[in-house]
Amino acid sequence: MTDLPRIDLSRLMARIDALGRVGALPGGGVCRLALTDEEREGRDLVRGLMEQLELTVTVDPVGNLVGTWPGTEPGPPVMMGSHIDTVRTGGLYDGALGVLAGLEVIEALQRAGARPRRSLAVAAFTNEEGARFAPDMMGSLVFVGDLSVEHARATVGIDGTTVGAELDRIGYAGTDAPTPVHAFVELHIEQGPVLEQEGITIGVVDSVQGIRWTEVTVTGVSNHAGTTPMRLRHDAGYVAGSMVHFVRQLAREIGGDQVATVGSLRLAPDLVNVIPNEAVFTLDLRNTDEIALDRAEARALAHLQALAVDEGVQVEHRALARFEPVRFDAGLVDQVEAAARAEGLSTRRLPSGAGHDAQILARICPAAMIFVPSVGGISHNVNEHTEPEHLEAGANVLLRVVSALAQ
Amino acid sequence: MTDLPRIDLSRLMARIDALGRVGALPGGGVCRLALTDEEREGRDLVRGLMEQLELTVTVDPVGNLVGTWPGTEPGPPVMMGSHIDTVRTGGLYDGALGVLAGLEVIEALQRAGARPRRSLAVAAFTNEEGARFAPDMMGSLVFVGDLSVEHARATVGIDGTTVGAELDRIGYAGTDAPTPVHAFVELHIEQGPVLEQEGITIGVVDSVQGIRWTEVTVTGVSNHAGTTPMRLRHDAGYVAGSMVHFVRQLAREIGGDQVATVGSLRLAPDLVNVIPNEAVFTLDLRNTDEIALDRAEARALAHLQALAVDEGVQVEHRALARFEPVRFDAGLVDQVEAAARAEGLSTRRLPSGAGHDAQILARICPAAMIFVPSVGGISHNVNEHTEPEHLEAGANVLLRVVSALAQ
Repeated sequence: MTDLPRIDLSRLMARIDALGRVGALPGGGVCRLALTDEEREGRDLVRGLMEQLELTVTVDPVGNLVGTWPGTEPGPPVMMGSHIDTVRTGGLYDGALGVLAGLEVIEALQRAGARPRRSLAVAAFTNEEGARFAPDMMGSLVFVGDLSVEHARATVGIDGTTVGAELDRIGYAGTDAPTPVHAFVELHIEQGPVLEQEGITIGVVDSVQGIRWTEVTVTGVSNHAGTTPMRLRHDAGYVAGSMVHFVRQLAREIGGDQVATVGSLRLAPDLVNVIPNEAVFTLDLRNTDEIALDRAEARALAHLQALAVDEGVQVEHRALARFEPVRFDAGLVDQVEAAARAEGLSTRRLPSGAGHDAQILARICPAAMIFVPSVGGISHNVNEHTEPEHLEAGANVLLRVVSALAQ
Repeated sequence: MTDLPRIDLSRLMARIDALGRVGALPGGGVCRLALTDEEREGRDLVRGLMEQLELTVTVDPVGNLVGTWPGTEPGPPVMMGSHIDTVRTGGLYDGALGVLAGLEVIEALQRAGARPRRSLAVAAFTNEEGARFAPDMMGSLVFVGDLSVEHARATVGIDGTTVGAELDRIGYAGTDAPTPVHAFVELHIEQGPVLEQEGITIGVVDSVQGIRWTEVTVTGVSNHAGTTPMRLRHDAGYVAGSMVHFVRQLAREIGGDQVATVGSLRLAPDLVNVIPNEAVFTLDLRNTDEIALDRAEARALAHLQALAVDEGVQVEHRALARFEPVRFDAGLVDQVEAAARAEGLSTRRLPSGAGHDAQILARICPAAMIFVPSVGGISHNVNEHTEPEHLEAGANVLLRVVSALAQ
């Protein structure tokens, strides 16, 4: 592998910047919600790059855009890619890196005169973020056959439009059928602080955390904060606050990858001198270990019930989202790790705490992910940033893994 | 005292209902914010009753309305009363009971042919609630000389009007000077659940809780709820929730009359999958024991600081309100208790958790309060209710105490 070509960092960065100008927000960051005019312009830019590399471009009925460089032998491609839609106040790297680094890998191989045995493909999947249309990872779900085109097209967005109407409007309701895939490797920014905190360049993603989102409504009795003795209270806010305290302890006690977050909490009537009669809060539990995750959820709900009985309040809870944990293909994960080490880069295995197209592709082929550090762990934010040396390192690992897979 | 006259419950209730129709809300309850047209109409009604009883009516520059029945000897009056302004969604009894029962006491004595040695007076103090103009208890503060008329008149309300302009507009900027008071007794609904819960008719109020209101702002770092390990979080919501949990324990541990309430709590950005970077919450601490109250506040703030250091977040706090506890005159409190027992009524000493004009009057004369049960402990609510038998009992205790004071 000593003659392995290298990716061209300046070319990659120029393309990241160019895509970042499509839907750019004043003052930085980007808003390229799925299937908007801005995202169509981003698609056109990516499609242009694919055509420049003489890739075979296909668009399927849900708008997934795939560019394929045929190998010397027939058969399903080794696929790279990610997505180019963003959240409302997104950064330049989330998704875009995986797509543009995939194209850079192909260009570097082409310029070096390489001709892989297997085909190489780069995909830009539709609506990974779910910021305009739910669910997220919609394009990859359709690609693997777990969501029907009809269902996807009928999805109504936050602005009242449908996926189908918007696909038709921007001209990306294609007719090509999704194809089998030999293996899928997604380069992505970590979107978390672990790599930066530990000074590590390459995150070898071995799994995706399972997710349990629960919304809890506590109904107590509103009363005067001065005239109601502690023993006679039915304080919905106390139960909610006490749960915030408890789930932190719970996550620490369970340890491992377990995380627990109360991100939203609202009280009513929300006045300084009135005991809250209602508290609505969300609980976000994640773990790569499904048994531990089930246990965390059961213990949280048991504690909630016990608190409710003690305080004399009613509680109701409903699941907002549930995803089972995903384990990436062990052999492919090993290959990513070996490639990073061959590049002389520091590595760490870690789970992904966020959802990615790779976890959906894992249903139909070996899949894995390469993470590079996010400065400050910041993502879904206009200040999202990854250092150029880390972009370069990640893309070279991607090139090395994909080259090996394509031999 | 065997020939003591009795109050006429049906007359008292008819007047409570009549006043309750002034500013009545559709479906029940009343909105009679201070110095509005509705409150002026309420004042006119009370003034008319005073004139009917041939009382000497005075209005001072902040609009405090006082009707005095001269005694057989000169000297400062024994004063009853309360207020007739309400919160935006108030009930029929808060304040109104103290004023109308005071007038009923005088009428019962007059009809029985009694002629007290000391003068008897009934006051309706301006803006006790503070729901339109801050501070609350404004009229009584001016009456005792602790707030200047100029300062009170310059107060800007929630609707941009001033106290002075509204007093002028409704014709209640009087010219009479506040007068000395021999003693002050205020009959009021409990606005809490203690009397009802314990099956007691008369609350002998021996004190008013001191109040410490603090607003706390916690500033952490907003991050992804999935990708940020527990150990790397700076979660403003956790610190707020943990304080909610802590202050409950603190209040229980301190015991006595200590209460602690987090009534308002807001997170930002308040999303299910984002660690909150900001939490703003209020802490309402009350106790009749100032030393215990100071200790509670100090311990809460020390715990907040410790949590902030552990979590790596910034905290700021500011006092929203601070009132020292008030002890009512021991002799007068004993008299209230003795009068209730002479009426054959069950009694319990208790502190007031809410603010009342009596605590301000206590600065210039012996003062005390009589509480009657609030159904469900509910007040500042259109469903506020007190049973007729309790209205009658409270008014008869007031009559008995005032008769004794006026001899």
